[in-house]
Amino acid sequence: MSESNLLNDRTAIAGIGATEFSKESGRTELQLACESVVNALDDCGLAPSDVDGMVTFTMDNNPEIEIARSVGIGELSYFARVPHGGGACCGTIHQAAMAVATGAADVVVAYRAFNERSGRRYGSGVQDRSTIPTTENAQYQWYSPFGLLTPASWVAMYAQRYMHEYGVTTEDFGRVAVADRKHAATNPNAFFYGKPITLEDHQASRWIVEPLRLLDCCQESDGGQALIVTSVERARDLKQKPAVIRAVGQGAEDDQESMTSFYRPQIACLPEMELVARQLWNSSGLTPDDIQTAVIYDAFSMFVLVAIEAHGFCGPGEAKDFIRDGNIEMGGGLPVNTHGGQLGEAYIHGMNGIAEAVRQVRGTAVNQVSNVQNVLATAGTGVPTSSVIVGVDR
Amino acid sequence: MSESNLLNDRTAIAGIGATEFSKESGRTELQLACESVVNALDDCGLAPSDVDGMVTFTMDNNPEIEIARSVGIGELSYFARVPHGGGACCGTIHQAAMAVATGAADVVVAYRAFNERSGRRYGSGVQDRSTIPTTENAQYQWYSPFGLLTPASWVAMYAQRYMHEYGVTTEDFGRVAVADRKHAATNPNAFFYGKPITLEDHQASRWIVEPLRLLDCCQESDGGQALIVTSVERARDLKQKPAVIRAVGQGAEDDQESMTSFYRPQIACLPEMELVARQLWNSSGLTPDDIQTAVIYDAFSMFVLVAIEAHGFCGPGEAKDFIRDGNIEMGGGLPVNTHGGQLGEAYIHGMNGIAEAVRQVRGTAVNQVSNVQNVLATAGTGVPTSSVIVGVDR
Repeated sequence: MSESNLLNDRTAIAGIGATEFSKESGRTELQLACESVVNALDDCGLAPSDVDGMVTFTMDNNPEIEIARSVGIGELSYFARVPHGGGACCGTIHQAAMAVATGAADVVVAYRAFNERSGRRYGSGVQDRSTIPTTENAQYQWYSPFGLLTPASWVAMYAQRYMHEYGVTTEDFGRVAVADRKHAATNPNAFFYGKPITLEDHQASRWIVEPLRLLDCCQESDGGQALIVTSVERARDLKQKPAVIRAVGQGAEDDQESMTSFYRPQIACLPEMELVARQLWNSSGLTPDDIQTAVIYDAFSMFVLVAIEAHGFCGPGEAKDFIRDGNIEMGGGLPVNTHGGQLGEAYIHGMNGIAEAVRQVRGTAVNQVSNVQNVLATAGTGVPTSSVIVGVDR
Repeated sequence: MSESNLLNDRTAIAGIGATEFSKESGRTELQLACESVVNALDDCGLAPSDVDGMVTFTMDNNPEIEIARSVGIGELSYFARVPHGGGACCGTIHQAAMAVATGAADVVVAYRAFNERSGRRYGSGVQDRSTIPTTENAQYQWYSPFGLLTPASWVAMYAQRYMHEYGVTTEDFGRVAVADRKHAATNPNAFFYGKPITLEDHQASRWIVEPLRLLDCCQESDGGQALIVTSVERARDLKQKPAVIRAVGQGAEDDQESMTSFYRPQIACLPEMELVARQLWNSSGLTPDDIQTAVIYDAFSMFVLVAIEAHGFCGPGEAKDFIRDGNIEMGGGLPVNTHGGQLGEAYIHGMNGIAEAVRQVRGTAVNQVSNVQNVLATAGTGVPTSSVIVGVDR
């Protein structure tokens, strides 16, 4: 188990690049991926030919060799994919850090690009999947007959129990949405730029799957995001301040399913995320108090509360109090999703959140938190997951 | 590029386990995967709960979390998938070695299991793929209209050019098939146990796609194979002699496509495999002379010749001479595929070949080569690929 520190403080995110975030990109997913990669290389001043490793999600439709050919990367000595949807986002950084730390590659691009709104909409769930009886498809047989066919329906199961267990209300979920949209409102790159919401707006929005309202569910977005990982030494010679990878890890727990771990003794928690958090804190020696701002994966507002608990910012069931009174907004104790999150900026499967963590370390975020030393970014919830802490070069 | 040696000699393949190899397993792919994993753990004396990392092919249908639940592995701190079909086999070892070397995991299981004969037969090609215009599907638009729909059809393009370029004949391809089947004939676990062939049998077998005959094409098999990777130190305390991972690497080259890199200036070669070989030799300080036996990926006999050249055992176009006079058979200068290869034992996407490399290092192969110090195993050809050298503990 990863409580050693052979990865920590050796590699850095040196470059970030994205496309615009929209509902209809008007171009292919490959084009979005290539633009993101080129923008990330430009950001740090590397050439395509400097890249020798690439990693993405198993869910991504853009093979690294197609991007490599299209942008002129040439030969690769490392390539891999990380499974489990949004749970993969910090996992790509884990992979990149391992490859660089072991010398398998010098410069690794982690990327994710899709037309998730104008193409296949993930919110539509698994009902259009093939009926081939694979192990993965077989999992859904326990849930599909009962109408649990979409991400919102699966998350609603956790949400209902979490409310029951700890006296949480949909207003508590709403406070996350309000914070995200407040931050998005001042971020020109956010889809909801200039469009904050109130708690009343949230409470008036329609049910998607009770107890989740429309404004609890993240956007469907078109767009791409790329991140460049290299050694701290090399990053220091590039155009941007390195965002040093302090700690990074993955986790899957007992009786883990992908989105549907309902047969566990307790479902008002995220044990796989607790496992990831333990690795990060134990290997780095950092504590939640060392984090000035966090990017918490917000496909659904509800899981932001559970993720805050899983990472130890407060105890089980206490997030509803932790997030009150603007504590997760700019000026609060732990500003969360200062870019607007996936509810406010865009849903790029968490990769745009890692870019925001990098900007906070650089000091270039639109909603910049002062005196940032370390930023936590987390990944998809309800699936095998991952987290990363990036920090300033010391 | 991986010419450092931060991975070399730090990790080992400690356990191997497989199912029987058949044409109709009569059970699910998940069952095959679980049996392989349990057998590999039993082989080295580890418990399921010792495992904290898992890696497989993107093409595998058995998510690691399903196997983990089924065999009692519990929590995982590392999981990933390697793309590009059989090119992934040594890539899974690359991944496992990186995870162990960096402390991301202590014990990693690499696995592959499928009903490739009784279920979806890969030899049937891409004609039944979805017509969704993904980047990956778009690649085939340049070939499918001309009838290039199956692996045999793609490889025939390379084979035709290779014959033209170097005066190679189908008899030269046949010598590979004869060697494989000779070795399979004495391996009770091989599907073709007790069934050697002659060069005349090969020449009399029907065309699949000219110039490839039936006996040039590997089997379609049902089965599973698992491999356990841990640190050399931990491996020394287990039941088997460690097969130390001397060097391991991946490679994709300029203008790389998956199986169809026909627009390169030269196609009678495998530049991505040359890239992998350079990394292995340069990082380890070993040379082809240091290899006593090799497992060369033989989905098609023809690519065995090119792979021998790519790894520097002889020059371009010289493999036809290198393999003459039984040089790749038991007793020859470089016995190849002593288990019978994928033509003779089974097609488990190259993973069964890595197991044979381990047995040669242990000294427990059915067709044991004497004085083995180092064994090369290679991966899928015509795709981004990988190789590994395993050797005796020193």
